[in-house]
Amino acid sequence: MPASYAYLGPEGTFTEVALRTLPEAATRELTPYVSVQSALDAVRAGEAEAAFVPIENSVEGGITATLDGLVAGEPLTIYREVLLSITFALLVRPGTRLADIKTVSAHPAAQPQVRNWLKANLPDAVWESAASNADAARLVQEGRYDAAFAGEFAAARYGLEALETGIHDAENAQTRFVLVGRPARPAAKTGADKTSVVLWQRTDHPGGLRDLLGEFASRGINLMLLQSRPTGEGIGNYCFCVDAEGHISDRRMAAALMGLKRLCLEVRFLGSYPRADITPDEARAVRPGTSDEEFTRAADWVARCQDGRF
Amino acid sequence: MPASYAYLGPEGTFTEVALRTLPEAATRELTPYVSVQSALDAVRAGEAEAAFVPIENSVEGGITATLDGLVAGEPLTIYREVLLSITFALLVRPGTRLADIKTVSAHPAAQPQVRNWLKANLPDAVWESAASNADAARLVQEGRYDAAFAGEFAAARYGLEALETGIHDAENAQTRFVLVGRPARPAAKTGADKTSVVLWQRTDHPGGLRDLLGEFASRGINLMLLQSRPTGEGIGNYCFCVDAEGHISDRRMAAALMGLKRLCLEVRFLGSYPRADITPDEARAVRPGTSDEEFTRAADWVARCQDGRF
Repeated sequence: MPASYAYLGPEGTFTEVALRTLPEAATRELTPYVSVQSALDAVRAGEAEAAFVPIENSVEGGITATLDGLVAGEPLTIYREVLLSITFALLVRPGTRLADIKTVSAHPAAQPQVRNWLKANLPDAVWESAASNADAARLVQEGRYDAAFAGEFAAARYGLEALETGIHDAENAQTRFVLVGRPARPAAKTGADKTSVVLWQRTDHPGGLRDLLGEFASRGINLMLLQSRPTGEGIGNYCFCVDAEGHISDRRMAAALMGLKRLCLEVRFLGSYPRADITPDEARAVRPGTSDEEFTRAADWVARCQDGRF
Repeated sequence: MPASYAYLGPEGTFTEVALRTLPEAATRELTPYVSVQSALDAVRAGEAEAAFVPIENSVEGGITATLDGLVAGEPLTIYREVLLSITFALLVRPGTRLADIKTVSAHPAAQPQVRNWLKANLPDAVWESAASNADAARLVQEGRYDAAFAGEFAAARYGLEALETGIHDAENAQTRFVLVGRPARPAAKTGADKTSVVLWQRTDHPGGLRDLLGEFASRGINLMLLQSRPTGEGIGNYCFCVDAEGHISDRRMAAALMGLKRLCLEVRFLGSYPRADITPDEARAVRPGTSDEEFTRAADWVARCQDGRF
């Protein structure tokens, strides 16, 4: 298998910075791809060992290109997640002053995160969308725009300077990234894990989704993300991308997934992997009645009853 | 109040075509706005009587700019919805042949709907995103790009011709639009109605969302849309935009909303309005035990019990 990771390029974006926080990235060749879909396809085609792409953002929510890329096509598995705090720098050619800036550029996803800052500091600047924040920086270098919002780390690469740093409208603006590869045995549980699945309902009826969520709730499993995505079969037809607290090797999670497999038209398992937001010490206590030991004792008891030994 | 409707411009897009299907649009001045947010703000500022914007798409799902614009800011109400089937035409300057096309342009939302067609017919064409499909047509007129994906109706406006029509990757590709105004008494129920609300959970705990959905399910109310949107308070913090079958004047819907008002941190009512997808004749039968008469008889019975007359 090629020792290379595909990632959403170009170089010099938050995605590359997040990827480089993974120890395993140091021993791989890192190859930028032009889109999430092309990075995922590189894994499916065997050109890359894994792909690293953004999946959730505290301002925009689920990244639909990534969710759709995992929902459809050959199955892939999430191996790891990375959280990165996102703050922007205003990058300009050396010598540019704030008063000189008539045009600003960045990826469209950056716009809601810098809108208030722009209104307060550059109310008359014209916004020009770019294919990525790094591309916006390149266009500033070439003189096409006056300023770009990008990571401060992009300044050196494009010969720019940061006129302002730490720009972010929302406190705690974060993006979550995932490392995705071909189906494989999930990493061992750490005690602070997350399990991702996609659920397709069998029929649309009152209480249908409530019943599916009940498979998690009745076993004390908290949900961390529930994102509906169109199935492509017309308006109002959705599947559900779900992130749940826990690991598929937890008895409660295995039981919930078995329940969903029975109730759903289809369930796609996207992986169990360590959470990036908390350590095992910080994980919430398991709800009474849902620990592995209690599941085991309950199964033993039913077996004894079936056996006449109650 | 000004007799004007704000809509997501520019002129010559699917939004304008959908708006013109509303009888009331014929008696209003229709004013294009550059963004969903600016159209909604025009209503909030009293510059427009109502705003007409896309809210859901069978390929892309909920339109986040619109949902976020309704979730935050001064309350607004959905008065009407419109469904429009979306098929694209490939617009070119007269005389252009398919073999001449090196660059194609459209709004980014069009891309997933024409991707397969492009791969089969113009595999080497370079994609250039435009601010809108109409804007892409204008740029073709000016000679900047060779072809634009837009509604066939845009051809005449920009002096172009349709080299191909009926382009759409997904069968039944539709977009749903809503007419939004300041809070007002909902239109009378038709028997095929929809109610939209935004729900904020009080605390995040296992079963929290399941319990909220139970308020609808236990009263036989089907959900048509459940879209999570970030609250802006960091990753993993979501509110839920919900469309449910029925009208707030239905006893079962009123009871469900009262239950949610008790259980949620906050509930925002976005309106009850006629469904565009079915007629009252086609509405599904009310689940036994959830009709207005049964609600009334049950309330009477409890009152008699409280009164000692059981």
